[in-house]
Amino acid sequence: MSSSDIFIGETIGTAVLILLGGGVCAAVTLKRSKARNAGWLAITFGWGFAVLTGAYLAGGVSGAHLNPAVTLGLAIQGGTPWGDVPLYLGSQLLGAMIGAVLVYAVYYGQFHAHLTDPEIVGTKSPDEGMVDQTSAPKAGPVLGIFSTGPEIRNGVQNVLTEVIATVVLVLAILTQGLNNEGNGLGTLGALITALVVVGIGLSLGGPTGYAINPVRDLGPRIVHAVLPLPNKGGSDWGYAWVPIVGPLIGGALAGGLYNLAFA
Amino acid sequence: MSSSDIFIGETIGTAVLILLGGGVCAAVTLKRSKARNAGWLAITFGWGFAVLTGAYLAGGVSGAHLNPAVTLGLAIQGGTPWGDVPLYLGSQLLGAMIGAVLVYAVYYGQFHAHLTDPEIVGTKSPDEGMVDQTSAPKAGPVLGIFSTGPEIRNGVQNVLTEVIATVVLVLAILTQGLNNEGNGLGTLGALITALVVVGIGLSLGGPTGYAINPVRDLGPRIVHAVLPLPNKGGSDWGYAWVPIVGPLIGGALAGGLYNLAFA
Amino acid sequence: MSSSDIFIGETIGTAVLILLGGGVCAAVTLKRSKARNAGWLAITFGWGFAVLTGAYLAGGVSGAHLNPAVTLGLAIQGGTPWGDVPLYLGSQLLGAMIGAVLVYAVYYGQFHAHLTDPEIVGTKSPDEGMVDQTSAPKAGPVLGIFSTGPEIRNGVQNVLTEVIATVVLVLAILTQGLNNEGNGLGTLGALITALVVVGIGLSLGGPTGYAINPVRDLGPRIVHAVLPLPNKGGSDWGYAWVPIVGPLIGGALAGGLYNLAFA
Amino acid sequence: MSSSDIFIGETIGTAVLILLGGGVCAAVTLKRSKARNAGWLAITFGWGFAVLTGAYLAGGVSGAHLNPAVTLGLAIQGGTPWGDVPLYLGSQLLGAMIGAVLVYAVYYGQFHAHLTDPEIVGTKSPDEGMVDQTSAPKAGPVLGIFSTGPEIRNGVQNVLTEVIATVVLVLAILTQGLNNEGNGLGTLGALITALVVVGIGLSLGGPTGYAINPVRDLGPRIVHAVLPLPNKGGSDWGYAWVPIVGPLIGGALAGGLYNLAFA
Repeated sequence: MSSSDIFIGETIGTAVLILLGGGVCAAVTLKRSKARNAGWLAITFGWGFAVLTGAYLAGGVSGAHLNPAVTLGLAIQGGTPWGDVPLYLGSQLLGAMIGAVLVYAVYYGQFHAHLTDPEIVGTKSPDEGMVDQTSAPKAGPVLGIFSTGPEIRNGVQNVLTEVIATVVLVLAILTQGLNNEGNGLGTLGALITALVVVGIGLSLGGPTGYAINPVRDLGPRIVHAVLPLPNKGGSDWGYAWVPIVGPLIGGALAGGLYNLAFA
Repeated sequence: MSSSDIFIGETIGTAVLILLGGGVCAAVTLKRSKARNAGWLAITFGWGFAVLTGAYLAGGVSGAHLNPAVTLGLAIQGGTPWGDVPLYLGSQLLGAMIGAVLVYAVYYGQFHAHLTDPEIVGTKSPDEGMVDQTSAPKAGPVLGIFSTGPEIRNGVQNVLTEVIATVVLVLAILTQGLNNEGNGLGTLGALITALVVVGIGLSLGGPTGYAINPVRDLGPRIVHAVLPLPNKGGSDWGYAWVPIVGPLIGGALAGGLYNLAFA
Repeated sequence: MSSSDIFIGETIGTAVLILLGGGVCAAVTLKRSKARNAGWLAITFGWGFAVLTGAYLAGGVSGAHLNPAVTLGLAIQGGTPWGDVPLYLGSQLLGAMIGAVLVYAVYYGQFHAHLTDPEIVGTKSPDEGMVDQTSAPKAGPVLGIFSTGPEIRNGVQNVLTEVIATVVLVLAILTQGLNNEGNGLGTLGALITALVVVGIGLSLGGPTGYAINPVRDLGPRIVHAVLPLPNKGGSDWGYAWVPIVGPLIGGALAGGLYNLAFA
Repeated sequence: MSSSDIFIGETIGTAVLILLGGGVCAAVTLKRSKARNAGWLAITFGWGFAVLTGAYLAGGVSGAHLNPAVTLGLAIQGGTPWGDVPLYLGSQLLGAMIGAVLVYAVYYGQFHAHLTDPEIVGTKSPDEGMVDQTSAPKAGPVLGIFSTGPEIRNGVQNVLTEVIATVVLVLAILTQGLNNEGNGLGTLGALITALVVVGIGLSLGGPTGYAINPVRDLGPRIVHAVLPLPNKGGSDWGYAWVPIVGPLIGGALAGGLYNLAFA
């Protein structure tokens, strides 16, 4: 796979992943969105079809990792050369940031209506009422559209949840080589991966919002920190390490488990 | 592909697309419908399976564009001869109008029960309470079954939302040539496209109701203007250009982006 | 296809179709069911996956028509010999009755808890409060688990709704010959048909509850009339012709339209 | 298939099945989960995609039975040697217990927040208010995350419901040999099976919560009995035989029916 294929596929694919994934969070959160309060099932299907679209677009170009945890798992498994890893990761982070900016462009009016509404800006943030085990910084009222956050803040526990969820994801992706005759991520493989992500969201998303992908969290968090949104509140950088470390450990574990058990 | 294949496939396929797509909007909106208030997830899955059915029916006949933005993208990509474009567009518009009339036929009793209910006709339209940035004409109480409308009325912003959503759609359709071995829209391609449309609805539909298809909006709007519905209110022609211009720009951009990045 | 294959496939397949389809109606309707009030989306997905399961089971045996409207459409199209039609129809009706009895067996305790609850049996039936255009017989409180009924009772209108919905269904099934390489109903064809049925339910089910299949309505209605359920109320035989006549007209129209337009 | 393939595939596949299946029950039940009260549709899709993920992971390794009822049906049908059955069953039970422990790990904080909340622990359990036909032991407030329980407690009736639901499941799995060209559980077969399970849940899950798998119920029930959860209440061992006996009868009936009707 050429460097330009990796760059183009991962950047565009990850941008679409985050555009649609962040988009569904904006859709159900913001005032004056037709989808407001559409519920958890809408969020999980929205993220699943975001994976489907991104993976489908990039599958034939870069293999559609779209996720450093997947790239790491594939490198350990042997499917991706270690020398390509930095380019994958950089392209994914760039794509995730582009995707988050596009969410802002699509929902520009809704963001401003939401963040200038006294009822919303005046109320406490989702995190505020909780008895956290650490002294948590306040999360801003739209941060959840960009990045994940825990319902109960506890670094070790939150990392463990992300590790387990990511092992499931990456193991399913690594297994495709066993099930599909051809090479690369086929159309059916993109569909299965998407539905696995819906399942991970429904089943394992309750505690931390299932980042299961370092750039899915970090890229939009950087964009949240930079965007000139009124009353946006903090970007909760104290939590930012969890959705990076947890998924990377999970991806590595899945690669090792695959080599031990399935290869 | 023969002219009669294009005409038959696009007319029947687009008619079924709008029959089912407009149908789900009628189903969740109208009084005395079993599906009333079934919610946003029902609307987005309904439109997605409308795409599936229309694309599946027309796929082997005309290639199942069903959408001028798709036809434009394919013409730019080189998959559809420019000389066929007018026939595609005319057939799609005709089909969309037929589909909207069929929605009226299926929900005839419900339309009349709804539009003669004093509680509904006496209340303000969905748009009325908003502080719009333009002097918006009132949208009628059942216009949303036929055509799209913005939650926040702002031409530039609404066009941008439609452009971005349509780029995602058309890029996914153009990419099928990369992923599928055969030519034409295969069965699996129709399924993927349908689920991509569910995803676009869930994620990007909040601000404008995701027309992403000029005839999906214009055809039913014409039918709304013509049908002898009691108390139907205006057809909001002031907005009609947005879901034409936005998707056409999006389709053209997707065709160009495909040629630059994927070809 | 041998007579015994037709008999076995259609009887078992239709029994499973009605067991799961009637089952989801019982699940969302009856007291002391875990799925009570799960909503319209649950009903439409439940019927869709009922089609998937029945069609998947019977596909390799009898071709999985499971529906006289499909058999009629296929006979007109030429895919099914006219001489086989009576055996298809008889097996389908038998299967539908078996399926309805199995729903009763699965939900035995719930049926009795529901029908002996004074709050439920004492209230008016769903139809009762309506200003019908005919003098409608009262529908019993659990009839909706067995058979369909209109929200607005008007024979011509209700038949028209069933005709249009059935044309969509049968046309999609007939088109599979165009899209699939092999013969018979393949696995992917069963999946597409199932999702088309979800779409028809979401979009066109609002007025009449989308029978789109004569035996799906008649078989369970006979079982409702015969079962020794307490306080079960009438079986609404005055409406029973609509979900027979409408789907048969629709199936015939689809067969003719297919021969004119697609063949 | 080698013994180590069976052991690895069934243990990992069943662990993932129960991790995701139990996970969705935790997600919708526990306090401070983002998915709380997401509803029956979320539960049924969550279990379906749990089957998808587990079957996809284990399909190419052990054939992905993940369920003693499936193994029994396949042994009767002739697809699985009887000598392999004990290893399948033992691995499945081990995997189910591992999966239940992983659910506890993922939702550790939520379990403790839930079970130390006076409002929850102080109230009666879901079963308590019912007039049961047997003297039912009280089910603990989180037992439903681990194991199934009836809405109306009646051994014969509950077994019958589980038998019928399991016949549908196992018959669908046995039929794959007819529909798929290749051998083993293909990718599309895993998807169909998953959606059949969603359908069984929606349609037949109302009375007993559709165990349809002995180890899916027994494994997590053992874990519930052993885990040091505060205020966890009883493990309802009086019901534990129903979701073992019912599915085993169902699997055997499906195997016999397949041999009689489909082979």
